[in-house]
Amino acid sequence: MTRKIPVVEHILSANDQIADQNLETLKAAGVFAINIMASPGAGKTSTILKTFELLEDKIKMGVIEGDLASSIDADKAQAAGIPVVQINTGGGCHLDAVMLKDAFPNLPLVSLDLLIVENVGNLVCPANFKIGTHKNVLIASIPEGDDKPYKYPGMYRGVDALIINKIDLMPYVDFDIEYFLKGVEILNPGLQSFSVSCKTGEGFEAWINWLVEQVKGHDR
Amino acid sequence: MTRKIPVVEHILSANDQIADQNLETLKAAGVFAINIMASPGAGKTSTILKTFELLEDKIKMGVIEGDLASSIDADKAQAAGIPVVQINTGGGCHLDAVMLKDAFPNLPLVSLDLLIVENVGNLVCPANFKIGTHKNVLIASIPEGDDKPYKYPGMYRGVDALIINKIDLMPYVDFDIEYFLKGVEILNPGLQSFSVSCKTGEGFEAWINWLVEQVKGHDR
Repeated sequence: MTRKIPVVEHILSANDQIADQNLETLKAAGVFAINIMASPGAGKTSTILKTFELLEDKIKMGVIEGDLASSIDADKAQAAGIPVVQINTGGGCHLDAVMLKDAFPNLPLVSLDLLIVENVGNLVCPANFKIGTHKNVLIASIPEGDDKPYKYPGMYRGVDALIINKIDLMPYVDFDIEYFLKGVEILNPGLQSFSVSCKTGEGFEAWINWLVEQVKGHDR
Repeated sequence: MTRKIPVVEHILSANDQIADQNLETLKAAGVFAINIMASPGAGKTSTILKTFELLEDKIKMGVIEGDLASSIDADKAQAAGIPVVQINTGGGCHLDAVMLKDAFPNLPLVSLDLLIVENVGNLVCPANFKIGTHKNVLIASIPEGDDKPYKYPGMYRGVDALIINKIDLMPYVDFDIEYFLKGVEILNPGLQSFSVSCKTGEGFEAWINWLVEQVKGHDR
């Protein structure tokens, strides 16, 4: 057992070093970047497409899509006119800093203001790997249930903002928002959160305002 | 890089050996066991509770609940009167054979006909670890979207049955069932599937019939 621990630490540390380099690359290019994490199907791509639609005139945005397989998400982004790179992890359960680094040369970084990285759909593993973005954003979704903060504490603890998506489904599912937010508050006191619906567009104004503020105010 | 591969193979092989022992333990006790996998919030616990409600008079059932943290699911099972053990992985993204082995002594195995193991909510990692059950069952859920087979092929490829849950939400979300099933068929031709709603009970009869058939027909 004792032999295993140093190996794991070494891997994490190498990843963190490259994550720091990625952040330097982004700063040098004047790009603010966020890492979006969520369960499968919580609405990561839909949120990105809606965000692009609302920001298009104000801010130049690019996207890196992470999936085990397929280019479904990148195809949607490209169809919307967003500069995009698809990373296929080939079965890997999260993005890492090297994957992000390797994706950079395929994007016109210097002409972008904002880069959104969509991580692999997974509420566990992505929380353990820095990739080198400025902020981590988690998307929760109403039909996935109100107990997720209690069951996936690592993910909820490590993020800088929370989007609560699919609020249009609230009338059709059992979701106790007080219980949910109580769990969030225990793990991540004062976490900035935004209740939205990608379907109806409800709630996007506050998210967009926050995001624009982040992009304009970040350390370049 | 070359040094890493033997280590990984060794770990998988040790896990598989214990998984085989687990299956022998279950066979010796006359218990048929299934491993339920799904995204967070797809309805694993709800399916288990509904299944228990419908089987209670016919079949003696026990449950092992796997979560990163909390005993929320085990509490629900216990409240319903199901013999249950909660495994907390402490951040680990899947159950493994050792965890299952360690849980066995806490259940009255010889008095059970059916053991349902609820894996950690994750569409990636659990697919790579045998735990030692007879069958693997995947729960997909309508609001998580119709593109999941294409994006998580490893999970869809490795299961023996598929439950499609939350069909009551079909009128409120965009879900192309033909596109979804086409993806399933490519990865896992002829896969047995059951469309259900834990909320309304719709579709449970076919699932229960299949399950009873499995329990009665398995190699003891």
